[in-house]
Amino acid sequence: MKIAVLGAGAMGGLYGSYLSRENDVTMVDINAEVVDKINNVGLEVREPDGSSNIFHPSAVTSTEGMDPVDLIIIFLNSRFTESALNGNKAIIGPNTCLMTMQNGSGHENVLGKFVAQENIILASTQHNANVAAPAVTNHGGSGMTYIGCVTGSADRFQPVADTFNACGLEAKVSDEVQKLIWNKMFTNVSASALTAVLQMPLGYISFDEATWELCSKLVREAVDVAKALGMDFDYEEKLAEVKKVCDNAPKGLTSIYSDIKNGRRSEVDTISGSVVAAGKKVGVPTPTHDAVVAIIHALEGRPLYDKDKE
Amino acid sequence: MKIAVLGAGAMGGLYGSYLSRENDVTMVDINAEVVDKINNVGLEVREPDGSSNIFHPSAVTSTEGMDPVDLIIIFLNSRFTESALNGNKAIIGPNTCLMTMQNGSGHENVLGKFVAQENIILASTQHNANVAAPAVTNHGGSGMTYIGCVTGSADRFQPVADTFNACGLEAKVSDEVQKLIWNKMFTNVSASALTAVLQMPLGYISFDEATWELCSKLVREAVDVAKALGMDFDYEEKLAEVKKVCDNAPKGLTSIYSDIKNGRRSEVDTISGSVVAAGKKVGVPTPTHDAVVAIIHALEGRPLYDKDKE
Repeated sequence: MKIAVLGAGAMGGLYGSYLSRENDVTMVDINAEVVDKINNVGLEVREPDGSSNIFHPSAVTSTEGMDPVDLIIIFLNSRFTESALNGNKAIIGPNTCLMTMQNGSGHENVLGKFVAQENIILASTQHNANVAAPAVTNHGGSGMTYIGCVTGSADRFQPVADTFNACGLEAKVSDEVQKLIWNKMFTNVSASALTAVLQMPLGYISFDEATWELCSKLVREAVDVAKALGMDFDYEEKLAEVKKVCDNAPKGLTSIYSDIKNGRRSEVDTISGSVVAAGKKVGVPTPTHDAVVAIIHALEGRPLYDKDKE
Repeated sequence: MKIAVLGAGAMGGLYGSYLSRENDVTMVDINAEVVDKINNVGLEVREPDGSSNIFHPSAVTSTEGMDPVDLIIIFLNSRFTESALNGNKAIIGPNTCLMTMQNGSGHENVLGKFVAQENIILASTQHNANVAAPAVTNHGGSGMTYIGCVTGSADRFQPVADTFNACGLEAKVSDEVQKLIWNKMFTNVSASALTAVLQMPLGYISFDEATWELCSKLVREAVDVAKALGMDFDYEEKLAEVKKVCDNAPKGLTSIYSDIKNGRRSEVDTISGSVVAAGKKVGVPTPTHDAVVAIIHALEGRPLYDKDKE
């Protein structure tokens, strides 16, 4: 299979490396340092057991002049999805499938601007990884990659699951991927979003009474939206899961916390914002998510502001 | 008139001093240093023109054993209103009137636990003042004190207005005091509340696009609630006023900003919270105020939390 991986970060590095065992993989990243290192040294994956492997997919900063590929897997910060696809139209042909494993939901709205909905693959992964150095991925934990889609049955993507499995990435097709994606979202849209708003670690979210009440409201609204979308989650169960995440990692700081702390634009629109968008679609009010999205956007601009301005 | 002033801060000091010219005034404050200084040295008011006067109302930390007074004027942080009135029941008789000039609205709900609604005086002042030192008030600007009430005509409080005027505090009775109170609230419940949420000065609120959009939503909801309460405000006009406040004092930091910064409980319940409560009463949704109140309460607990807690 001809595969392009957009984004050679931790997860992109992991999937790109493994898939290069049996496929023609091209890593696409705007960071020339990473691209040069992949081409000159290779892409390294450090496994939890201490072993390490170096892989040799090709790597480019631009796909201009290249032919369309069979599959593009997107591992970008969702804020860059649209511009990255615009910049890599060369490799998108009429039969190209776009696969997203990004956090949050609703990515099919952006992907749908580039391919038909039938060619969109929604995946949910249980792997985790972080960047050890440019072109070096620390592989944290492993697990299943569920491969699903927006319309029709996911069975037609069995060949994709097959090549994942052949490459050592346990995978299966599933028509429940939307539910898996939402299942992962509850913590992101409640506790994680609040670490950004309050600039406090996860432990504070379950510790402070007023904060936990607010967190519960966010979970409640998200469960209600999911229900209207046809996905039944138990509110008390989800809330208990969110609490466990906070209690188990009290010092935990999320990526959206860091985005706000460091004055970067955050991914809030595809995380909390996807609850808002889905709520609008199905007519379920999400007033607390609305406010969280608005406040996170209001916080994003702070570092740009000169407080001494007259 | 026998008058007790609850709270010998800046505004309490100003009104207590002036009213002591023609009335039997007792200052009530739990701060023994302030009370001792008033009794031993006097209560000083420094005027904008540089002149200064010392007044000699009596002062106590407790009113236990005292007789009921004609009028109690409340200049407390609204969070302490109920406990202060509970602690000073001795001076509340069946004919005692309670007057509030506190920020925000809805104070009559608490005052109504101690006197009949007919005995509640709602006032709105154009004076401003700050504390120069214990028992020393810097009088900033002067203006009208409007004296109104919750039920019936305010005309019956003409004697109160008369003694204010006789003491150099320009006053008139008005049946439009609720509207004056709300008129002062729009900036407090929008821009000021956001300075607390975002921990940024007023200038940022009108500068940052996402923040100004959020601020506009807060003004919109408050105008809608006021309308349902029978008070017609023009949204565009109010929004322009809020913008002017932000533009004119870009470095301005509000008291609610300081409360959150310094880990104090804030007055949000009687400011933004009064829009929420009024909205509930009249059936107008206030989702953005709901979230702002919840987030400010969530922020209040931050300094109590040990971030290194496991």
